[in-house]
Amino acid sequence: MWIAGAGMTRFGRRDENLPDLMAEAALLAMEDAGIDQPDALMVAAMNPEEFTGAGNYGSLIATRLGLSHVPAVRVETATSSGVAAVYAAFAAIAAGLHRAVLVVGGEKMTHVPTPRVSDIIGRSIDPHEKSYGATMPALAGLITRAAMHRRGLTLKEFSQVAVKNHANGARNPFAHFQEEVTLDAVMASRLVADPLRLFHCCPISDGGAALLLTADRRAVRIAGIGQGADTIAIRYRTDLTTFRATQAAAEVAYRMAGFGAERVEVAEIHDAFTPFELISLEDTGLVPPGKAGRATLDGETAIGGRLPVNPSGGLKARGHPLAATGISQIVELCWQLRGRAEGRQVEARVGLAQSIGGLATNNWVTLLEARR
Amino acid sequence: MWIAGAGMTRFGRRDENLPDLMAEAALLAMEDAGIDQPDALMVAAMNPEEFTGAGNYGSLIATRLGLSHVPAVRVETATSSGVAAVYAAFAAIAAGLHRAVLVVGGEKMTHVPTPRVSDIIGRSIDPHEKSYGATMPALAGLITRAAMHRRGLTLKEFSQVAVKNHANGARNPFAHFQEEVTLDAVMASRLVADPLRLFHCCPISDGGAALLLTADRRAVRIAGIGQGADTIAIRYRTDLTTFRATQAAAEVAYRMAGFGAERVEVAEIHDAFTPFELISLEDTGLVPPGKAGRATLDGETAIGGRLPVNPSGGLKARGHPLAATGISQIVELCWQLRGRAEGRQVEARVGLAQSIGGLATNNWVTLLEARR
Repeated sequence: MWIAGAGMTRFGRRDENLPDLMAEAALLAMEDAGIDQPDALMVAAMNPEEFTGAGNYGSLIATRLGLSHVPAVRVETATSSGVAAVYAAFAAIAAGLHRAVLVVGGEKMTHVPTPRVSDIIGRSIDPHEKSYGATMPALAGLITRAAMHRRGLTLKEFSQVAVKNHANGARNPFAHFQEEVTLDAVMASRLVADPLRLFHCCPISDGGAALLLTADRRAVRIAGIGQGADTIAIRYRTDLTTFRATQAAAEVAYRMAGFGAERVEVAEIHDAFTPFELISLEDTGLVPPGKAGRATLDGETAIGGRLPVNPSGGLKARGHPLAATGISQIVELCWQLRGRAEGRQVEARVGLAQSIGGLATNNWVTLLEARR
Repeated sequence: MWIAGAGMTRFGRRDENLPDLMAEAALLAMEDAGIDQPDALMVAAMNPEEFTGAGNYGSLIATRLGLSHVPAVRVETATSSGVAAVYAAFAAIAAGLHRAVLVVGGEKMTHVPTPRVSDIIGRSIDPHEKSYGATMPALAGLITRAAMHRRGLTLKEFSQVAVKNHANGARNPFAHFQEEVTLDAVMASRLVADPLRLFHCCPISDGGAALLLTADRRAVRIAGIGQGADTIAIRYRTDLTTFRATQAAAEVAYRMAGFGAERVEVAEIHDAFTPFELISLEDTGLVPPGKAGRATLDGETAIGGRLPVNPSGGLKARGHPLAATGISQIVELCWQLRGRAEGRQVEARVGLAQSIGGLATNNWVTLLEARR
């Protein structure tokens, strides 16, 4: 399975509507691929009805692209919806049902008041736990506290993730935030959900991202892709400080690829909350258990380090337009593997993307490899 | 590709919540299949966030079923979402990614005030056309008027569809409406959107339906499945009185199956509005152009006729819980092909299901065949 084209919009506060953002990304991916008539369209959007008032997004986007005769399906797995659509395209091509599939994801949220956004995203939490007032940041804070208590995670470590990712975002013209921040500024920022402060949390962003997958040989291939799951109810989990869904996804992806974490040279990780970057680096086996915080402080995961993580800026600085995010991680890796990540280019032939759906209920790991 | 198990709830006004309805159907399908640990879960729901206030339905249903470690994806193509999930499962198995996939779809709507339901479903219309006050029944009325004017469709013909489907529903313990109606009652019922009257329109229903698909040989196989698309904006279509999306879907399904309409002996057709049954019978090639009305008046499509259509009662009488509907059509065909449709059994080895998404923007045709 090959990636023929990749494209995305600048993430951030955008005036365009969601179909226009998705179309911008899709047209860039099709142009990059040199393919303007895909056989099928996979559309990812997490909550388009609530955020935009429109529905039937598969057909809506197909029509917006002038591809109304192309079969379109919408796929959703909360915040990992983008990769779910990539996986659906992967399956359709691998099954021989289609030869070239356009995948496009996006979200438009910044026009909606923040408490309303928070409530809508909060619907991906277990309804019973939500009824007690749980929100996504509140549960992330709880997980972070548990990791500090049981695994020795420190405030400085997960603050440094923000410093690193903002430094990367400052070099990415597609990023929501393109300014560096200091460790002091991160640790002094407003408290959101103890111990998480504002600069530990990703922003609310608008944006779109797209890929064109094909059965024909191109520059970058999807070497492995895997999905893992865990209970939506946090109270049923055996461990709060690792994500079983990521571990399971990584196992499937490595098995499909036929190689392990040792070959990965760059990673895009779902840092919706900065401690999650550290948890996920260990869940994917990229860093040994308990070592991700230290590796970050030592600069191992910075651009120029042993394993650059989130050279795009990650969700923290590139931004997090929900269903666009998982696709944008793969777009960034494509650019990195093809030597087109100007200003933030790393040396890599194999990249890993990890995406979290909901509070780690439906996670994905994708392995990309550049052709020799 | 084989169907190992099929199950559904009674459709209608139900007190259970949506996860419970979906679980009821899923457990029946798993029991029927003798498989309690599928490799993956495809969940179909059209507007669960708006109707139930919860999201992340893939993970929610997996957890509800005690299958929280099983990867789950939600698929949506408006009112044809159920078949879109069947297709996703088909692709995943055909690709060799999974061996047994549980497909479950459902909707819970009757607790929501009708104008609100209408507004939510209306979001699958082109936003520009909706802004002029278009609703789903209004556009269906417009299509029906055009068919009467240009194709000679008569009020009596599409009223007889309601009479037939209610007669079938009266023999189906899973149907929302289990009472016969007379032609006079249909034609005298309250006007909804000229020329459509209340008894020409399907009800608002709750319910769930499920299938277990497997790579292993079973009693019924999916011989062909195809998706077709058309522009979401009705004003861009070249013809209002046929559905291009159905025609394209049928072409793909017949090609995959290696046989044509001549082998189909029973059909489940998307009669959300009764004239659509007649349009769709012609679009699928089951009845020659312009002949479906006459065939219906002549009893050809009744149980016992040449080609029984909607022995379940169809959307009109069995009910239309949106994302459950496309799956429930296939459940009914499975039961018919396996000789388990007590009270409404027909003689058939090959069945066709046709599902409409939105106002015929995203349609599907599925062909089932009983093992010799």
